[in-house]
Amino acid sequence: MERIPILRMGDLLLVTIQVDLHDQVAMQLQNDLTNEIERINAKGVVIDISALEMVDSFIGRLIADTSSMARVLDAETVVVGMRPAVAITLVELGVAMPGVRTALNVEKGMALLMQSRRED
Amino acid sequence: MERIPILRMGDLLLVTIQVDLHDQVAMQLQNDLTNEIERINAKGVVIDISALEMVDSFIGRLIADTSSMARVLDAETVVVGMRPAVAITLVELGVAMPGVRTALNVEKGMALLMQSRRED
Repeated sequence: MERIPILRMGDLLLVTIQVDLHDQVAMQLQNDLTNEIERINAKGVVIDISALEMVDSFIGRLIADTSSMARVLDAETVVVGMRPAVAITLVELGVAMPGVRTALNVEKGMALLMQSRRED
Repeated sequence: MERIPILRMGDLLLVTIQVDLHDQVAMQLQNDLTNEIERINAKGVVIDISALEMVDSFIGRLIADTSSMARVLDAETVVVGMRPAVAITLVELGVAMPGVRTALNVEKGMALLMQSRRED
């Protein structure tokens, strides 16, 4: 089965979404990601969606849910690489993604996570 | 058209291959990657293939070629996350990938690139 790789960099995790997230892949990702957060005691997750040219409310909710799951496991999530068209669609769909932080690219997302860790 | 995202982290680039690399996607990736190396003056490229459960000689050669292209642009390539089955297949296919360095995971690959940069 298709599986989205989760890359570890220190105590941060990086997920790059490139494929269509149908139910099965999405659930597998949430499962893998929560397990990995627990396993390595991750402090942050960066989700890169620069490859996604469009999103629907399913993906929007998936990202919001994944971020909430990470939060209860004490890891902060930053979504990076969102295209302008995707931002427009998400707002129009009413998927507000509360509590999800965003950054322009992976580098800035990682910097954001490291900075907020230092402030703790 | 499908496009594999290239993530920038400092002066290193990270490519995670998750989808089947047919000709068109592969050529697009080589094109994007060489342009990006030149644009940001990248010193290293990490190619993560942990999502690939099998490879054929096309992908093997593609990785070797991409690495050679990066080298002439003064960037070193490290392939990470290769599965044991993939390593077996590559050797059996006779795709030796000369000059391509490998590491167990992204973190170790990045460490390798930073180390070899310090030695310069």
